[in-house]
Amino acid sequence: MALLDETADGVYVIAVTPFTETGALDLDSTDRMVDFYLEKGATGLTVLGMMGEAPKLTAEESRIFVRRVLKRVDGRVPVVAGVSAAGFAAMAELSESVMGDGAAGVMVAPPSNLRTDDQIVSYYAMVAETLGTKTPFVLQDFPLVTQVQITSAVILKIVANHPTCVMLKHEDWPGLAKITALRAAPDARRISILAGNGGLFLPEELDRGADGAMTGFAYPEMMVDVCKAHAAGDRERARDIFDAYLPLARYEQQPGLGLAIRKHVLARRGAIASPALRQPSAKLSAADIADIETLIARQERRLGGLG
Amino acid sequence: MALLDETADGVYVIAVTPFTETGALDLDSTDRMVDFYLEKGATGLTVLGMMGEAPKLTAEESRIFVRRVLKRVDGRVPVVAGVSAAGFAAMAELSESVMGDGAAGVMVAPPSNLRTDDQIVSYYAMVAETLGTKTPFVLQDFPLVTQVQITSAVILKIVANHPTCVMLKHEDWPGLAKITALRAAPDARRISILAGNGGLFLPEELDRGADGAMTGFAYPEMMVDVCKAHAAGDRERARDIFDAYLPLARYEQQPGLGLAIRKHVLARRGAIASPALRQPSAKLSAADIADIETLIARQERRLGGLG
Amino acid sequence: MALLDETADGVYVIAVTPFTETGALDLDSTDRMVDFYLEKGATGLTVLGMMGEAPKLTAEESRIFVRRVLKRVDGRVPVVAGVSAAGFAAMAELSESVMGDGAAGVMVAPPSNLRTDDQIVSYYAMVAETLGTKTPFVLQDFPLVTQVQITSAVILKIVANHPTCVMLKHEDWPGLAKITALRAAPDARRISILAGNGGLFLPEELDRGADGAMTGFAYPEMMVDVCKAHAAGDRERARDIFDAYLPLARYEQQPGLGLAIRKHVLARRGAIASPALRQPSAKLSAADIADIETLIARQERRLGGLG
Amino acid sequence: MALLDETADGVYVIAVTPFTETGALDLDSTDRMVDFYLEKGATGLTVLGMMGEAPKLTAEESRIFVRRVLKRVDGRVPVVAGVSAAGFAAMAELSESVMGDGAAGVMVAPPSNLRTDDQIVSYYAMVAETLGTKTPFVLQDFPLVTQVQITSAVILKIVANHPTCVMLKHEDWPGLAKITALRAAPDARRISILAGNGGLFLPEELDRGADGAMTGFAYPEMMVDVCKAHAAGDRERARDIFDAYLPLARYEQQPGLGLAIRKHVLARRGAIASPALRQPSAKLSAADIADIETLIARQERRLGGLG
Repeated sequence: MALLDETADGVYVIAVTPFTETGALDLDSTDRMVDFYLEKGATGLTVLGMMGEAPKLTAEESRIFVRRVLKRVDGRVPVVAGVSAAGFAAMAELSESVMGDGAAGVMVAPPSNLRTDDQIVSYYAMVAETLGTKTPFVLQDFPLVTQVQITSAVILKIVANHPTCVMLKHEDWPGLAKITALRAAPDARRISILAGNGGLFLPEELDRGADGAMTGFAYPEMMVDVCKAHAAGDRERARDIFDAYLPLARYEQQPGLGLAIRKHVLARRGAIASPALRQPSAKLSAADIADIETLIARQERRLGGLG
Repeated sequence: MALLDETADGVYVIAVTPFTETGALDLDSTDRMVDFYLEKGATGLTVLGMMGEAPKLTAEESRIFVRRVLKRVDGRVPVVAGVSAAGFAAMAELSESVMGDGAAGVMVAPPSNLRTDDQIVSYYAMVAETLGTKTPFVLQDFPLVTQVQITSAVILKIVANHPTCVMLKHEDWPGLAKITALRAAPDARRISILAGNGGLFLPEELDRGADGAMTGFAYPEMMVDVCKAHAAGDRERARDIFDAYLPLARYEQQPGLGLAIRKHVLARRGAIASPALRQPSAKLSAADIADIETLIARQERRLGGLG
Repeated sequence: MALLDETADGVYVIAVTPFTETGALDLDSTDRMVDFYLEKGATGLTVLGMMGEAPKLTAEESRIFVRRVLKRVDGRVPVVAGVSAAGFAAMAELSESVMGDGAAGVMVAPPSNLRTDDQIVSYYAMVAETLGTKTPFVLQDFPLVTQVQITSAVILKIVANHPTCVMLKHEDWPGLAKITALRAAPDARRISILAGNGGLFLPEELDRGADGAMTGFAYPEMMVDVCKAHAAGDRERARDIFDAYLPLARYEQQPGLGLAIRKHVLARRGAIASPALRQPSAKLSAADIADIETLIARQERRLGGLG
Repeated sequence: MALLDETADGVYVIAVTPFTETGALDLDSTDRMVDFYLEKGATGLTVLGMMGEAPKLTAEESRIFVRRVLKRVDGRVPVVAGVSAAGFAAMAELSESVMGDGAAGVMVAPPSNLRTDDQIVSYYAMVAETLGTKTPFVLQDFPLVTQVQITSAVILKIVANHPTCVMLKHEDWPGLAKITALRAAPDARRISILAGNGGLFLPEELDRGADGAMTGFAYPEMMVDVCKAHAAGDRERARDIFDAYLPLARYEQQPGLGLAIRKHVLARRGAIASPALRQPSAKLSAADIADIETLIARQERRLGGLG
């Protein structure tokens, strides 16, 4: 399998981790989910991300799940695995496992105690050393959750220091100016930039120079179709599609409840058997589910109108 | 002027504080802004909120600004003033000033160091004592910014303890379940609940029992028209209107940049003379302004289609 | 091996995790360290605590290390293992492993995102369910690090809900009033309370009703001798001993540098072969080491004077 | 009155703000407190610091209090006033007032939302501009409370950019390496460095190059005598004095309770009439007061033994 590099573009769907109603890993649904994402146009998959309930898995479960995804994907698209961990020993162990099984690269978010520029640069130096020279990695920049603020200068320094840093998962909210700054930086090695944040700023991020999206909205075809229309130069159509999905995408971005909504919709669409999350997790109420139904009905009507 | 009470509904616009290009209070624009908000259908105004740059004013400037707003409003709608302060002496001083000048009530957000339920209940007991028995107050529940999480049980306890607590500014994001729980609580004194968060969840919040909105999106007519359609029982039309404004409302909700966008649009619409913010503040780039133009053009087209 | 219960007292030393200079687990030093702690009078050991670099170990390393400690201790004193984890699957896995190998109980600190009373009570309900009815657990209350504030009312609720909660590791800093409140609570099931915080408030904590200490200051004999003098009713002698060690104990409590100091002193005393920490970690400078030498020399002189 | 400059040394006592039992500013006690501090050997005073309950005063009270202190000091020692504020307008107003009244300089801590190096450097550029070229300022570096981490490189940049930055209040806990780095920096303009943190690391901080202390332990003579012995080259005596006070100094450093302890001791010593704090504040229990009595009795015995 080819390794991840700076040419990556399109939509890397952040995959959920399917569980059965009793909380066990659901490997059958894992296959089904892979098929679903690829049918919808994913150009890559990212597993064990924040919305993949990675910390709720044991080390062994993480390896088993990634292995299953890789087997089902079977080389059709690159697979990135989140390996963020509280310590480098666990990070090394998981990274070796997934790369050995055929992953294209790994993703690392900074631990929430990092503050100064130097601390961040040093942390990623330790990451790069831990992963080794043959494992490309994605820098996940998500201050709303990590509480770590990374300037574009710091990103550029990490990119300059470590050839294995090949991609930025951009979810500084929305941090449009950061994309502009990274793309304008003279003499900087180009990396791929994929937009996160549930796709809530995708049209603007593409305009600023993002190469696509890496996020997990339950309608991955939204990101796929927006990226395609944008690539074809039809920005108005890109926004028409985006706007049609926005009410639901917004609803899915609720802190605390978002993943339950996403899994509910994925189960409703047949992508996974059960919407179950592992504890601790929020539960949807009847009113939440009614909201979702309303939003989906309106979304379908609107998409119908687009032709 | 009548005091704020639990019957308050409609749209209390969170007013910006207009400055001149050199950073002085712009009192002429203050008048113009008041007129603008009332023309758009505001049923109340809230000044010195978080988006009112309150901490950037001196104590004296705060008093002058509120006085000017009150004079211009001249009793047409109730005016609420934010009096959150690091200490109770400053809170008492400002509260006495604005109530003496004719405000209908005040608003208090919790300081970010509160953690346990008891700490929050005790804090609002000190608030209620500081404000006195004649000053109605709004509890601002905005965990994304304050970092304080207030359960519905704690809100109900504050309401039970303090007759002067008459309104909740609801911006637990979106915390729809909280509105449901508050409305379903048996034996609880009714308070007004107005939705914040830039209006991003307004249709759902109204469905759950909110009485309206208290937020400052630069098109207050969005909140006004959504509330009207909802009150008239036409939920689909409420959502049609909402959806038309959502792309711009979402864009305005960018942390760090949001207020600059809001003031830019307000200045563009003639509501204030200058979009200037006091330091520290973010500045819009040419690309940001181009985004806004695109969004407004599409919004107008879409609204035109609604009839 | 007997299980941990509410009668636990004396000094449960928070053990470090010894590494070789190249960062591998040092199992020979693990034996040596166990002997050292027991010779100094430890009545229990706690492994994989915050100062045990637990997050820097892989799941497998954690199991191997605990197994080695248990083998060397060979039932002479109870051993508690920290099993705090980002998810319950990993917590269950580690807990089953260590209890199966003969640990007396486990310890769980709350994750830093808990805020409201209900969230904390619910979290420990999930903990108790995860651990099962046969595994006694220690509630670690350390707000300075976890950022979670737990009132005495919440602790009492957890104790009432879960018979397996048998001990509080008290390091609310110093939260002396909390010990008083817990000991004064009517109708509350008694639990053991052991003091943390590097022992910096040990005399006062014992006065308020703590049963001993659970902390890892590099001179465990300080805690042992203070507890003995206190138990013998000689509070002045308890304080004389405490004061003699206080300058170094204070120096060891430096955030960021503390564990490096502790391991340096333990290596200097022959308890472990190398002071090495795993990355990321702070390094002592020559000036730091000179400080430590000065403090130890003065400490020895002072202890000599005590007789 | 001479302005603060980089030659400042000795002990700048962080003054409390005395209140009457009913919470009014106690201006008589203000005089008494000034006299007390100067009798104990203070070489400067710092008012409206974090332990001065500054945020609990109105803007007008702050001005009155500082004016009273300045009048009583009457030029005998330099007075520094804390002017940290949520906005620059309030900072400018207070700074102009106190400098006009004869303060020697002002002190500014960073707001807790600053994260990146650039944000900190920019913030202090706005501070320096706000204060003007004639007002020397102290950079307060207290990450435990502000949550802002400032590297020595950032401090050096601020010093290089702004000639009016003349002093560092050092309370990175203890951040001894930071003092070493600042003193070793080639080509850096010298600034005064005074140690904070209740003096808990004073001997080591003086060894690393601090010029004295700026902190408010209720026995200022501790800091004064330690600094004198250190200046006289007698480091062992400096530590003997320090160790004698350490048990109480440690007790005073309890988060949440510290200021109540400090004011209790100051009232007990006759420096102020009442130990009252403004709300919100912690209250000492009988057990707390008994602890303090024990500690003071032992401290006096120990000091007696020193000769």
